[in-house]
Amino acid sequence: MADKKRIIVIGGSAAGPKAAAKARRMDEHAEITILQKAPDLSMASCGYPYYVGGVFDDRNMLLCTPTGVTRDPMFYLNAKGIVAKTETEVTKIDPKGKTITAKNLRTGNEESFPYDKLIITTGSTPRKPPIPGIDLDGITTLQSMQDADYLRKIRDEKKIKKAVVIGGGLIGIETCEALQLAGIEITMIELLPQLLTFLDWEMAKLVENHVRSNNANVITDNGVAEFLGENGKLTGVKLKNGTELPCELAVVAIGVTPNSALAKNAGLATGDTGAILVNEYMQTSDPDIYAAGDCVEIPNLITGKKVHAPYGDLANLEGRVAGENAMQGNTVTFPGTIQTGICKVFDYGAGATGLSERNARAAGYNDIETVINASPDKPGFMEGLLLVTKLVADKKSGKILGAQCIGPGDVSKQIAIWAMAIKGGLTVEDMVNADLPYAPPFSLAIDHSIAAAHIIQNKMKGRMKGITTAEVKKKVDAGENVYLLDARGPDEFDVMRLGIGEHLIPLGAIRKRLNELPEDKNAEIICYCKISLRGYEAARILEGHGWTNVKVMEGGIMAWPYPREK
Amino acid sequence: MADKKRIIVIGGSAAGPKAAAKARRMDEHAEITILQKAPDLSMASCGYPYYVGGVFDDRNMLLCTPTGVTRDPMFYLNAKGIVAKTETEVTKIDPKGKTITAKNLRTGNEESFPYDKLIITTGSTPRKPPIPGIDLDGITTLQSMQDADYLRKIRDEKKIKKAVVIGGGLIGIETCEALQLAGIEITMIELLPQLLTFLDWEMAKLVENHVRSNNANVITDNGVAEFLGENGKLTGVKLKNGTELPCELAVVAIGVTPNSALAKNAGLATGDTGAILVNEYMQTSDPDIYAAGDCVEIPNLITGKKVHAPYGDLANLEGRVAGENAMQGNTVTFPGTIQTGICKVFDYGAGATGLSERNARAAGYNDIETVINASPDKPGFMEGLLLVTKLVADKKSGKILGAQCIGPGDVSKQIAIWAMAIKGGLTVEDMVNADLPYAPPFSLAIDHSIAAAHIIQNKMKGRMKGITTAEVKKKVDAGENVYLLDARGPDEFDVMRLGIGEHLIPLGAIRKRLNELPEDKNAEIICYCKISLRGYEAARILEGHGWTNVKVMEGGIMAWPYPREK
Repeated sequence: MADKKRIIVIGGSAAGPKAAAKARRMDEHAEITILQKAPDLSMASCGYPYYVGGVFDDRNMLLCTPTGVTRDPMFYLNAKGIVAKTETEVTKIDPKGKTITAKNLRTGNEESFPYDKLIITTGSTPRKPPIPGIDLDGITTLQSMQDADYLRKIRDEKKIKKAVVIGGGLIGIETCEALQLAGIEITMIELLPQLLTFLDWEMAKLVENHVRSNNANVITDNGVAEFLGENGKLTGVKLKNGTELPCELAVVAIGVTPNSALAKNAGLATGDTGAILVNEYMQTSDPDIYAAGDCVEIPNLITGKKVHAPYGDLANLEGRVAGENAMQGNTVTFPGTIQTGICKVFDYGAGATGLSERNARAAGYNDIETVINASPDKPGFMEGLLLVTKLVADKKSGKILGAQCIGPGDVSKQIAIWAMAIKGGLTVEDMVNADLPYAPPFSLAIDHSIAAAHIIQNKMKGRMKGITTAEVKKKVDAGENVYLLDARGPDEFDVMRLGIGEHLIPLGAIRKRLNELPEDKNAEIICYCKISLRGYEAARILEGHGWTNVKVMEGGIMAWPYPREK
Repeated sequence: MADKKRIIVIGGSAAGPKAAAKARRMDEHAEITILQKAPDLSMASCGYPYYVGGVFDDRNMLLCTPTGVTRDPMFYLNAKGIVAKTETEVTKIDPKGKTITAKNLRTGNEESFPYDKLIITTGSTPRKPPIPGIDLDGITTLQSMQDADYLRKIRDEKKIKKAVVIGGGLIGIETCEALQLAGIEITMIELLPQLLTFLDWEMAKLVENHVRSNNANVITDNGVAEFLGENGKLTGVKLKNGTELPCELAVVAIGVTPNSALAKNAGLATGDTGAILVNEYMQTSDPDIYAAGDCVEIPNLITGKKVHAPYGDLANLEGRVAGENAMQGNTVTFPGTIQTGICKVFDYGAGATGLSERNARAAGYNDIETVINASPDKPGFMEGLLLVTKLVADKKSGKILGAQCIGPGDVSKQIAIWAMAIKGGLTVEDMVNADLPYAPPFSLAIDHSIAAAHIIQNKMKGRMKGITTAEVKKKVDAGENVYLLDARGPDEFDVMRLGIGEHLIPLGAIRKRLNELPEDKNAEIICYCKISLRGYEAARILEGHGWTNVKVMEGGIMAWPYPREK
């Protein structure tokens, strides 16, 4: 029947099945086919690290619906009316003839399929460094179900003692935690000076400290120069600085490359990131071909610049738009991303949305304000846990540009709040009086996010001069003549303190002990406490008494990423 | 010194101390005085139920800073430079003479204090029903520290066996849980047909079922007519329908009345709610007098109508604005509320933001769309927990008007997301492609909130005809000729089912069993499953095969508030 629309979807992991299912719901009678290179379909690939780490043991949970039905070709046929062919690699797209050629990887046979509309969801491939020894046994990535099986087997066999994880991004950190849970001694190696590049350095440093405190080693500013082996098996890695680390396993997690070759070979346009170019309808340069997921580039909604954002949630949303438009013409749009991301780091969360300070400056935002806020997520009597947030806002418009949050507290809610603030184009002024759900089991009376807005507002109004922990450290290391004021109580000071030459004057005693402060009213004074709330109040008192150069160390001791005396 | 501004704050619970502290940070040299009727200051009153329930045992945690310093007059003097007088009741405001008269409740002495700016934060008083027996021993509220002490003592003494909680709002539910945790047999009595009036009926009913499943009795649509007693002590309550319930304790939680008499007597304007009128600067009808917290009314930002919104978080935000403006003239504003609220209901959360369907219709929104979405908050392999959300949107503009969410899952994040969506004036279209933080430990690939937006979008585009559980129940009870299709698997059906005459046809079998469906293509068919995702797919299949009157029961079995066969 010529009136049955033929839709072919290349790729069956995240965006592909979503596009196919959406297309089906738009038209019960279309012919919809998914061609998938891998043996499995619709894998919950973001769950691999938790399977490897033993958070759950039933492998099938990665492959089945919530009610336990495996998402295999039979499921797709019966429940969705979709033909899904696995181990089927598409080798060529002929846009003129509107056909694709696919190879059955089991038989080697090639076959052609005609399409009315094509949806490319070919995903991405983990990058591998082109260095000696890369093909040794014991070197893997964690991207496919097969990778997950391989690492899970290592966990279950309990033979491997030492491993390295190469790359300190999201996947690297999740893999590090998974292997550490498997009882393996881990070293994480990152070429850049920090982990998790969606965070600014001082935030990433707090995450690094937390990784270390969970008995994983971290090496930054250093890369792998060579994989060392014996009899074809990995025995260690040699770093760029010459250090050799013995290990039996190396997981490479240095990012992914979009799988755009098939599209490129068919003459479809790709962008600067190397990924397939699509418009807001998820349509490629060929109007009959759509693309979605890790193989495309999409606009960053803040900068307007195209980015490669290989996130599972975006793949699903893009797939939904591609599927609907492929079926019934361009009616819905996918506007882009603000690059919201989160990962679990042992019992911490670490997330970000929008622009970091570094990315904001790189994008040309030169007049920005930032702040670091540390506070619990809930009251102490409800066992509140620490959150540290860094907020970035445009000074003139007050617009929120980005937020980063880490800590054992409810990071996910904080990032969701800021993601929505950015989505709504909200300003600091808007956030200062946000109306969020408050009850002691869920938040402070003034939510952590709102408090962060209050502090950045104080800075923007010139009521608070902030200084970062990094700047303080530099001053201390350089022997600069600054007066450091810790405004906590003596009991707190006994238990924990920086030990950088600070003077302890409890907040409640400052007004009586002003004579202990520098006589020179222009002397540089830096106030702080555990989270710098009392530090801020101390600064206001000193300014009220005539000192002109008083700063607050943002986030206080909780944001200090360097070793402490205690 | 005449250049020292004199600020008096009447009330020292939430808004008052916040206003005073903010005023101090604006001016180190002003004279700031808090006059507080109660013996304590800055009590974490929202924490009372958790102290009563034994979530924590250290009473001082309700009264001290995070580092353990009690917020008493000495603390205020030393740390804040604020004079705080407790057990001091302000009896009169003289706006012309700019003085107030206060009575020392310990000595009975009256004293006058002059002010330059006055801030009224007198809070609210729990309503008590004017019915016989209201003064018996054993009847209390849970609003003051003394109430909390009284109820905590009851918990610790373990003598009382039976109690009633009168009122099924936030405080009523929190008190119910607290007393149930104290081992007391509880009956909750609500005059209206439902608990938690910020929820629509069908959502509240799910909460009610959860309260019952925690061994607390719930009586709705009924009130207390009389308190029964012997020798001055409560022995029971008589309900309006004549039922008598024996009990030794009754906690009254039927709402609060703003304490506006002092202001009214001074000639300040009050509004329709009986609370003090303020402008966006939190300034009363007298330019030298500000007010904040439970004693004022503020705009609902959606309807524009003034409301009495006695929430602890708003009190703090309003106090901050009042304190700053009182000190340095009107520079900052508090725009109003979207009436975001949340409470813990045993291991459930229940929250809402914006308008419920009922409130939207009452406010004149006649062209609205609603949807109920049920899904886990996280993947099954991360032990996701159920969330049920009801979303309300304006049909023409697509604007989100309100959201309600309940369940054991992460309700707080969901409500925060929707609160921010409303704050940003976002539409369904915006939410459909929201960029939220995704990783399996924190959410589904398509977050529950985004999925709710997808479903309401499908409804708005006419792709899904929804029907509520209440409408289905009505049809079934009336014996209407509807074909009910449960699209789950037989194993699921064996374990749990409605038993309302439904036909089980698993989603994957529907295309082969179309002959079992009504021959009449206009017959009314209602599809559902556990959460109605498969129900929706089933409906799309049937529509694709020509049935014209196919509906999806929103939220599926998880949103069914009535008894089930299994």
